[in-house]
This record gives sequence, structure tokens and C-alpha cells, in this order.
Amino acid sequence: MAADIRLEPPATLGVVGGGQLGMYFVRAAKAMGYRTIVLEPDPRSPAAVVADRHLCVPYDDESALAVFADACDAVTVEFENPPPEALAWLSQHVLLRPSAEAVAIARDRGAEKRFLQDAGVPIAPCVVFDEEPVTSDVGFPALLKTAELGYDGKGQIRVHDEAELRAAWRVLGGVRCVLERVLPLEYEVSVIIARSHDGVTQPFAVTENRHVSGILDLSVAPVDGPIAQDALRLARTVVEQLGYVGVAGVEMFVVDGSLVVNEIAPRPHNSGHWTLDAANTSQFDQQVRALCSMPLVEPTMTAPATAMVNLLGDRWALGEPDWSAMTADTRARLHLYGKHEARPGRKMGHLTVGADTRDEAIALALELRERGTKYL
Amino acid sequence: MAADIRLEPPATLGVVGGGQLGMYFVRAAKAMGYRTIVLEPDPRSPAAVVADRHLCVPYDDESALAVFADACDAVTVEFENPPPEALAWLSQHVLLRPSAEAVAIARDRGAEKRFLQDAGVPIAPCVVFDEEPVTSDVGFPALLKTAELGYDGKGQIRVHDEAELRAAWRVLGGVRCVLERVLPLEYEVSVIIARSHDGVTQPFAVTENRHVSGILDLSVAPVDGPIAQDALRLARTVVEQLGYVGVAGVEMFVVDGSLVVNEIAPRPHNSGHWTLDAANTSQFDQQVRALCSMPLVEPTMTAPATAMVNLLGDRWALGEPDWSAMTADTRARLHLYGKHEARPGRKMGHLTVGADTRDEAIALALELRERGTKYL
Repeated sequence: MAADIRLEPPATLGVVGGGQLGMYFVRAAKAMGYRTIVLEPDPRSPAAVVADRHLCVPYDDESALAVFADACDAVTVEFENPPPEALAWLSQHVLLRPSAEAVAIARDRGAEKRFLQDAGVPIAPCVVFDEEPVTSDVGFPALLKTAELGYDGKGQIRVHDEAELRAAWRVLGGVRCVLERVLPLEYEVSVIIARSHDGVTQPFAVTENRHVSGILDLSVAPVDGPIAQDALRLARTVVEQLGYVGVAGVEMFVVDGSLVVNEIAPRPHNSGHWTLDAANTSQFDQQVRALCSMPLVEPTMTAPATAMVNLLGDRWALGEPDWSAMTADTRARLHLYGKHEARPGRKMGHLTVGADTRDEAIALALELRERGTKYL
Repeated sequence: MAADIRLEPPATLGVVGGGQLGMYFVRAAKAMGYRTIVLEPDPRSPAAVVADRHLCVPYDDESALAVFADACDAVTVEFENPPPEALAWLSQHVLLRPSAEAVAIARDRGAEKRFLQDAGVPIAPCVVFDEEPVTSDVGFPALLKTAELGYDGKGQIRVHDEAELRAAWRVLGGVRCVLERVLPLEYEVSVIIARSHDGVTQPFAVTENRHVSGILDLSVAPVDGPIAQDALRLARTVVEQLGYVGVAGVEMFVVDGSLVVNEIAPRPHNSGHWTLDAANTSQFDQQVRALCSMPLVEPTMTAPATAMVNLLGDRWALGEPDWSAMTADTRARLHLYGKHEARPGRKMGHLTVGADTRDEAIALALELRERGTKYL
């Protein structure tokens, strides 16, 4: 539990959650010689099948948590939604990075907004409702979002007046919600940033993100200019104020040429997948390094520009996509997560391309994905 | 078995052999979405523990070979020493790349020398002995090497006259041997080259290699200038004349400013491990692509220079090396293969660094390795 002692291979690293982010963490850890354990109830999740050991139990199974804490030298998370009590318990028994407190803040939109406000970081006008809302002064249109357990656009409804607001609150189950003003968004950017136990921050190049139906569809890097400088500054402020150790994704909106912070992912982020193919280190390598108190790498890009497109289960609707078409261009790198069932909206893999310019990268990535799924 | 049809994920790829080269092949294949099977008698080999399936049987187990051929859409090898009969049988029942013939040539120093001579490629003066040698006209000093099953300097003895030659032949067991003149070697280079089913060749940057006690100790890339151009030309000639499909490592000696080809590894090569960290694609990615009839990537380096040092089991003699010291410099990437027992001469892992110049890369790699094992 000594936080400043480097954990050397073959120490054992645990990850709570078995999705593709956990899979990449496990791969990065194994390549460096660490042993890996995944705590994940799904028997066939991407991370579980590559780890040395799989505790196939609910996240809050008390006896499994004890086994997990005992077997691991350090633990991280691959998503923010494990029960906060489970992470709080773990943090008492094993080195947990990021901290249970940081994950709890990122997990709860109410706590997150409060933290950001206190940190002096610009956010969209918002209000937290614990009870049925009657009125609101954040203005309309606005998004009503459940405070907990929302992701990929789930758990949120757009409302245009107070009647809609009340109806939406009931549709969302009458739980604690955050109402957030919809701003005239120009575009979204994210910063994937690593912070070490001794306070060194190492961000990757700023990434621009485009969503379809609330799910990340395309990311492109780098973003240059004053917006990028501001984004890096805000991301640093966020992780420093959180006392964060690990890798975080900080999402921001560009509104009227300035930034507001949208949310914090206390883990590597889908928009940072290009770091696997177009950087000297990946967000997952940095996650391992931060967890083990190893010095962070200073990230650089290895291509002038890069774009990543997600491959959602929707595209499997008429059968397996045409992978050959996607990989015919050797500037492309295809990644598949090995998920057993392709459901609409489920992230099955992604395609990353390198190119000389951002526009070229975007056009190429979209074209290759279309070629592979053009029969849809 | 149709050799020109692209094998798309989730096709199943098999590899004969379970060492670290097989492990990296499996990782590359899995990342692209392929299923993987390893045929390897060692229950705890590096490749077996990362593959989807492990046939833990001798390489020539006939019923296992049938299961393997049936389960795989294509098969490759990670070393040249599986029984030639097993590969010949596999080649009749499943797509095998490289071909059984190419592996058989690379496996047998006698056949290899004959092939190189026929291909018009310069080699050191040599002669093959099927029976006890009486005399030799290749000159002394010379190396007597068993024709089969030699690697990492094993199965070879340096001889200085005919009496030593006869004694050495008996020490090596009286088997078929190649006697090869020891040339005034300046240095060794290798070319890792991929060749596709449709005859496209894609070499990586030429690498210079330094050995200690017959085992690769350090590789550095790139080698520039006329020697590099000659090396690339010779490597192309070798794989073209072999009708090779897959990734090969071609080792060459620089003697009096010109090249002689030493040997052909019909698989990725230890000296190409830097491609995992300092190139836009790795030798293992190319191996998957060639096996699956996917177009090869044109390799480029992502650092001006790179050096790799092997970590042999010798360095574990007094306990686990100090990994923190090796990884304290963030220009270094540590790789460990997860082998269960550290024996002298056994390759346990390697360390790759990127730097601005070759000299800087060499100095840094050696220094970091020493720092990690200085108590030895």
C-alpha cells in the first residue's frame, strides 16, 4: 500500500471491469511483465479472456473483493460504475488508483458539477434535482440527465419547457438528476491526461470528437491553436484539483470559441484509442505506469494526424462486415474486441488511420468504414 | 486452402511453437480480431498462455495435427525446428505460410547453403560433411556446425586444423555437418522482410547485431549507406528465390566492406523486436498480414534510431533484476515474456530504447540494462 514505492514486474495488477478498456490495460501490463486479474461478472468479457486470472463475480461480492485485494499489489478501474462502496472497501485494503473518491465524483454528475465549479473550471449552467423539479432557471433547451449510471447518451432526455422537464424526470425514474443547459456547441474536444503519484502530468494531443446518437463515432487528433492550449490547461487543473493518479479523459465543449468542461472519465477513454497506433506510448501504457509509480512517458504523435472511427454492433446487422475492405488500405489499423454478441450501439471494435492532415485522416477513416459496411 | 483469398477476422490462425515469437504473433492476431491456436508441448510457454486455445502435445502428434489443421484457417511457425514431416503433413491439409519447403531449407544448414549458392547470393566458403571429415579446402579457422537443430551458437565448434576438425565432428555426435570458413567479420546485419502471397516485399530498416557467446545481445537500427542498400537487395533476392510468403529474418556478415549471407530465419527474428516500439507496424503485424493475404504495410521508423538489448536468464542469477532502474528512463520500453524459469542463456525479455542517434541509443540501452543488473 506504500504509494510511492515502484511496483516492479512480476507484481500483480487488478482491474475492476472487463470491457475493452480493461482488455487494453491487461495487454499493456502483460507486455511489461505484470500479472493481471480482472474482476468482472461477465464470463466472456474482452478483458477476462486475456487476463491471467478472472474473478467472475459481481463487483460487490464481498468475499471475492477480499480475494482480489489480497491477490493484487495494485488495482485500477476501467469504468466508473462499480458500486462506490466496493471501491471504498478496496481502497482500504489495496493500493487503488485512481482513488475511490475521484471515481465517486466522476460517477455522479451532481458531485462532478459541484467539484468542477469549486475548481473554478467553466461548465454549462446546471442545477441538481433531488426531488421532482418544478421550475428551473438554467434556461431551455436543456438536458435532464440521471446523476448516476449514464453513459453513451443513455439516461438523458432533452427538454424544452417546464412541463417536459417534469415529464422527463418521471420517465427517468424519479431519481436524482442534473439539468444542464444545451449550449450552442461548436464541437467537442477531449484531453487524455496521465498524472503520476508525484504530481507530474502528461497529456496526449488534444482530440476532437464527433458523436452519433450520443455515442462517440469519430475522434481526430491533433487539435492545435489556442483552444488546444486552453483544453490542456483545464485538463491539468481538473486532475490536479482532484489529486488524481492515473489516466483520465476530460471531455469539453467548444462554445463561442471558449471551453466548458462536460465530464471526467476516471480511466482511459474511447477518444484516446488512437494512442495505440499513432503515438510513442498509449493511454494504457501510461495507466500501467501511473498505477505502478513508474515515471510517465512524455507523449508524442508518430503520425502528423490520426482519426479513429468506432465500429458499433449496428453494422453487424446484415452479417459480419467486410474486414478486407477496411484493411485494404495499409494506413489503417483494425481493432476488434472479440465480443461474442453484436448488439446495436455496442462497441465491437475501431479503426484507426494515420495521414498527413486531419481532413485526410477523417475522410480516409470514414471511407474505409463505409467500404466495409456499404451493404447496410 | 485457397491462397489468394483474404482471411478475415474472426478466422482462426495457428502457430507451431510456443516461444516469445509465437506470443507476439498471437497478440498481433488477437488485436486484429483473429482467433488463435498454439501447438506446443510446453504447458507454460509464453504463446500458449495468451492464445485462445493450446494444443499441448508434441509437434508430431498425428491426431493433434489433424485437430489443429481442422481448427485453423491458416498456420504459421515461430521457429524452424518442428519436424519437417509434421509441417509437410500440415501443408497438405491447411494453408501453411511460410511453405514447408522454405522452412525445411532454413532448418538444414546444408540445404540452406546449397539454396543460397544456387540463388547467386554470396556466402562464406563452406563444405557439407555427411561422413567423418578427413580434410577440407575451405581454410582455417573454420566453424563446424551441425546441419540441423543449431541455434544461439549451439551445435557449433571453432576448429583450427584438420585434427581439430575430426575431433569436433565426433564431439558433435558424428552427424551431418557444415564446415564454414571464419571470415574477418566486421559486423553482422540482418534484414527483417515480409513478402506477400502476390510477391510484394516490404523490408524493415536494416539492423546491426552484436552477439555475446553466440547469442544476440544488442540490435541497433537503422543501418544506412551502400551496405544497407546491398543488404536489402540480398534479402529481397532470398525471399523471392524461395517463393517465400511471410516474414523472414536474413542474417548477413559484413566482410571487407561487402556482404555474405549467413542464414535465413523463416519467421520473425529477435533482431526485429524493435519494430514493436519504434516502427509504424511490427514484424508480427506483418506476419499476420502475410498469412491472411492482407496487403503489407510499408514500414517506417517512428524514432530516428533505436537499440534493443536482450535480457538473458543469466541476469536473474542473484534474483530478480531491478526493473525500476531499467524503466526509470521513459525512452525505454521493457518487455518480459513471462517465462517461468530463468536459465542461463534463456531469453527472458528485452529492452528497447529510442534516441536521436544510433550511438546514443546503444549507450542508453546498455546503460539501463547495467543499472538494472549492476549487482551481478
